[in-house]
Amino acid sequence: MLIHEDRLFLAEPGSRKIARALYEHVKALPIISPHGHTLASWFAKNEPFSDPAKLLVQPDHYVYRMLYSQGISLDDLEIGKAELQDARKVWRIFASYYYLFRGRPTRLWMDYVFQELFGLQERLSASTADQYFDSISEQLKKPEFLPRSLYGKFNLEVLATPDSPLDSLADHKAIRDSGWKARILPTFRPDSVVDPEFAGFQENIAKLGQQTGEDASTWNGYLNALRKERARFRALGCTATDHGHITAQTADLSLAQAEALFGAVLAGNADAFQQELFRAQMLTEMAAMSMDDGLVMQLHPGSSRNHNRKLFERYGRDVGADIPRPTNYVDALRPLLDRFGNEKMFTMILFTLDESTYSRELAPLAGHYPCLRLGPSWCFMTALKE
Amino acid sequence: MLIHEDRLFLAEPGSRKIARALYEHVKALPIISPHGHTLASWFAKNEPFSDPAKLLVQPDHYVYRMLYSQGISLDDLEIGKAELQDARKVWRIFASYYYLFRGRPTRLWMDYVFQELFGLQERLSASTADQYFDSISEQLKKPEFLPRSLYGKFNLEVLATPDSPLDSLADHKAIRDSGWKARILPTFRPDSVVDPEFAGFQENIAKLGQQTGEDASTWNGYLNALRKERARFRALGCTATDHGHITAQTADLSLAQAEALFGAVLAGNADAFQQELFRAQMLTEMAAMSMDDGLVMQLHPGSSRNHNRKLFERYGRDVGADIPRPTNYVDALRPLLDRFGNEKMFTMILFTLDESTYSRELAPLAGHYPCLRLGPSWCFMTALKE
Amino acid sequence: MLIHEDRLFLAEPGSRKIARALYEHVKALPIISPHGHTLASWFAKNEPFSDPAKLLVQPDHYVYRMLYSQGISLDDLEIGKAELQDARKVWRIFASYYYLFRGRPTRLWMDYVFQELFGLQERLSASTADQYFDSISEQLKKPEFLPRSLYGKFNLEVLATPDSPLDSLADHKAIRDSGWKARILPTFRPDSVVDPEFAGFQENIAKLGQQTGEDASTWNGYLNALRKERARFRALGCTATDHGHITAQTADLSLAQAEALFGAVLAGNADAFQQELFRAQMLTEMAAMSMDDGLVMQLHPGSSRNHNRKLFERYGRDVGADIPRPTNYVDALRPLLDRFGNEKMFTMILFTLDESTYSRELAPLAGHYPCLRLGPSWCFMTALKE
Repeated sequence: MLIHEDRLFLAEPGSRKIARALYEHVKALPIISPHGHTLASWFAKNEPFSDPAKLLVQPDHYVYRMLYSQGISLDDLEIGKAELQDARKVWRIFASYYYLFRGRPTRLWMDYVFQELFGLQERLSASTADQYFDSISEQLKKPEFLPRSLYGKFNLEVLATPDSPLDSLADHKAIRDSGWKARILPTFRPDSVVDPEFAGFQENIAKLGQQTGEDASTWNGYLNALRKERARFRALGCTATDHGHITAQTADLSLAQAEALFGAVLAGNADAFQQELFRAQMLTEMAAMSMDDGLVMQLHPGSSRNHNRKLFERYGRDVGADIPRPTNYVDALRPLLDRFGNEKMFTMILFTLDESTYSRELAPLAGHYPCLRLGPSWCFMTALKE
Repeated sequence: MLIHEDRLFLAEPGSRKIARALYEHVKALPIISPHGHTLASWFAKNEPFSDPAKLLVQPDHYVYRMLYSQGISLDDLEIGKAELQDARKVWRIFASYYYLFRGRPTRLWMDYVFQELFGLQERLSASTADQYFDSISEQLKKPEFLPRSLYGKFNLEVLATPDSPLDSLADHKAIRDSGWKARILPTFRPDSVVDPEFAGFQENIAKLGQQTGEDASTWNGYLNALRKERARFRALGCTATDHGHITAQTADLSLAQAEALFGAVLAGNADAFQQELFRAQMLTEMAAMSMDDGLVMQLHPGSSRNHNRKLFERYGRDVGADIPRPTNYVDALRPLLDRFGNEKMFTMILFTLDESTYSRELAPLAGHYPCLRLGPSWCFMTALKE
Repeated sequence: MLIHEDRLFLAEPGSRKIARALYEHVKALPIISPHGHTLASWFAKNEPFSDPAKLLVQPDHYVYRMLYSQGISLDDLEIGKAELQDARKVWRIFASYYYLFRGRPTRLWMDYVFQELFGLQERLSASTADQYFDSISEQLKKPEFLPRSLYGKFNLEVLATPDSPLDSLADHKAIRDSGWKARILPTFRPDSVVDPEFAGFQENIAKLGQQTGEDASTWNGYLNALRKERARFRALGCTATDHGHITAQTADLSLAQAEALFGAVLAGNADAFQQELFRAQMLTEMAAMSMDDGLVMQLHPGSSRNHNRKLFERYGRDVGADIPRPTNYVDALRPLLDRFGNEKMFTMILFTLDESTYSRELAPLAGHYPCLRLGPSWCFMTALKE
């Protein structure tokens, strides 16, 4: 056995017995995933996954960064390439260093996949690498491993994927048009058009204007364009927005201030303070739009993105390392909460990478504002995993 | 049974056995409460409490904010009203939503009161609301539930209540004059006359001057007035002061600087920085007075008060939400500690709402300065409770 | 028995059994101590330690500060004196207050020494003080308690001591020349010549120039002098540098900026911001030198040194209290990591006194940069001990 059935429960027998009983109650419930790191195209095309390296290593920056930190070359792992030239070789490297994940969440999850999905029983290592590669590759060709089959097998009820306002949502439309009875929903993730530091921000705003027929070079036209895009997402089932800012800062500027600030960021004249202020103001604008259209806001601040400059420059945005940082919520959210904190029509889900904020700030905040809900610790998905 | 006798002990049997043995040693000890959230008037008048809604729901912002965060109207709970118009209705609302407190400290405490004081055994809910209301209301009329009886029943040895320097302390005098042998002591809580952001600060200073016959419009007269008020409190048994600042910042200005700053805050010309600096300076002044009169200083910083602007504007100061925040002690306390940190005559008790400071900063600080003592975590009373 | 054999293991029997099994695997391994708080002179001279007060109380600021915080005079403990006038009296004071250490790491360690090294079995107290003093003093005269004997008895494989670049390293040379087969290595700790706030900074720089024959009044000469000192240390086996800055701030200035900044700090014109910037720049310069000579960097930031001003003024630098503080690593290390973070030739070991940074920032940082390693929590050695 690769995994112990009680692996996530407390060791103390009395507590473990209670944990087991609680788990029995919930383990058959369907999964509602508001933040799934999957691609709508998987389900639109429903093509088989090719091999374990392409499926499990190449897209998972937690896996390959760990290897990188131990001195393994990202080039040898073919990171950043559209297709793998030698998937078996990549898999063999991963297998050889799999022992590094001992005691880490990544191994808990990988071993679960190996044992429960693929029926493997011997530990992954250099000597079992080929056996794993062949067995998994073969099984992935079977109909029960097609993306839509896995959606059913995993007992998913809803799966939301983050999508850019600039995305055509063609994959989501294809899923809907295919008649397949599954709830794969887009989530409105506007980073590319609300963060002045996002690559190509000005071009993104221009594209946003073209898409919507609005003059996005004006503050009012820009906001209208965002409203139209939210309506387009909602028409395909979207229920939420998703905001990955570096801080939780919000702002509540006057119309004149906001217009002037928008002019500065669009002209590329904004300094770091103004860029942050613009992101802050846009959170409040998104909340205002949520008051109208009912989309739930998800905010997960506190990650210093692309921290590793050399990796960022060589491999791009999602390889450059996300490092959690201390996060202030009490002062930062106040401008937004002053406007919408007591509105029953509005809901904001807060995530955190800074565990120390849970009992100190987040629980009290959620205990005082009807609009606030706390997400499960984002830490569990990132910091702990690394 | 509503509560488990080992509910606060570790689950592991060996550790639980030790916890029980330790508890046996202390459970019969009298309670010395330096910071009791009670009113001296209860004990001065010794009148019966009217009903459970007025006693347990209306004054407890942890209880009603939790209900508010779940969408229940504070108006329906009659929050902010001097008398309840329909106490039974308020109690029924509370009872209907009591399930929300499952797993929270509030339920531990409430269930303790229900079971141990009032002999109730069935869980509070919509269906038991009236039974609870009637039973508790009836028992509250009995002599053994009068405030002074409860003081004895709870085995209190000392109970200190926070009082403003502007308070006449008539209730404390009445207790003393009544000949009742109990130690109910006032604690000197000067927020209203040392915090320039406190409502009516200028008027409070003027009143302080009138009370004491000092010219409180001058720095020297103001300090003298505070000294006289401390003496007045001490004459009624006061042993401590209590300071609820938003930060732990202290300062040690020159006489000229302090005079000028006092002039600015009294004239209402002080900006946010100067207001904070004045609070900081006043902590050091209070320490200086403690060196003379021996009052112990209690400092509990780190709460962002009245965070919820709409609640604050509608219901006032104690309803507006206190949100804990990260708190710096190392730099903040230095000016005060530079002057008094090594004085054996001086004692300062530090509380914290930021648990992360305990092992990192507070234990080492207390381990280096003879004057410092650490209070039990204020968190237990607030953040955890919410 | 003074100590329980399982005293550091979990209480739950299943977990304890695993802990014991793991400990069995490692307990016979030799000790490699990269950061030993010992003096090379002990091993160079190999003279007997005189008595328990001089050995265990006088040099250990964690011990005597705890006593000081409880109101015991440092003068009575003869702190700061080169030789003790009345060692037995100092020991008696310590023994009388030893109960204060109940439940603290210091007692775990002291009791281990008393029981395992000196065979004592009754608890230290006022009534056993003389028995302890006599027994330990007598045993310390025996050959098996000479410093070199203890090195062997403790199964040390390597012991590194922090030394200033201004130190002659005569003791290290004497150890090497003595022919004794032990690895006692100097560690390059340059605080005195890279921190403008260090006492006598300008004189230290001048002395550095004289020692090396470089013109240390110029930026280039200063760097060359440091390179020469590192080479001198390496010739005596040094493998690492050690940096005890108050923050983890690093910088990467241009040559012109660095030269100008060096001029300002050397002239004594630098303000607090510039002093911090100079320390920050010097960490990056040390990293650059490590790229050349292979010395591992150890960084342990986050201690506010000499916090207690009166103790500092009366007793000097190592008595003035070190208070841990919150520490930022994510932004602070970025300039250095931008240059060297991906270099396989470079290794930096990070220590922390701020436990909250472990899972939030340090583990993710170490998981993204091949150069980073995490040291055991410095907390265990300081904050917890106090």
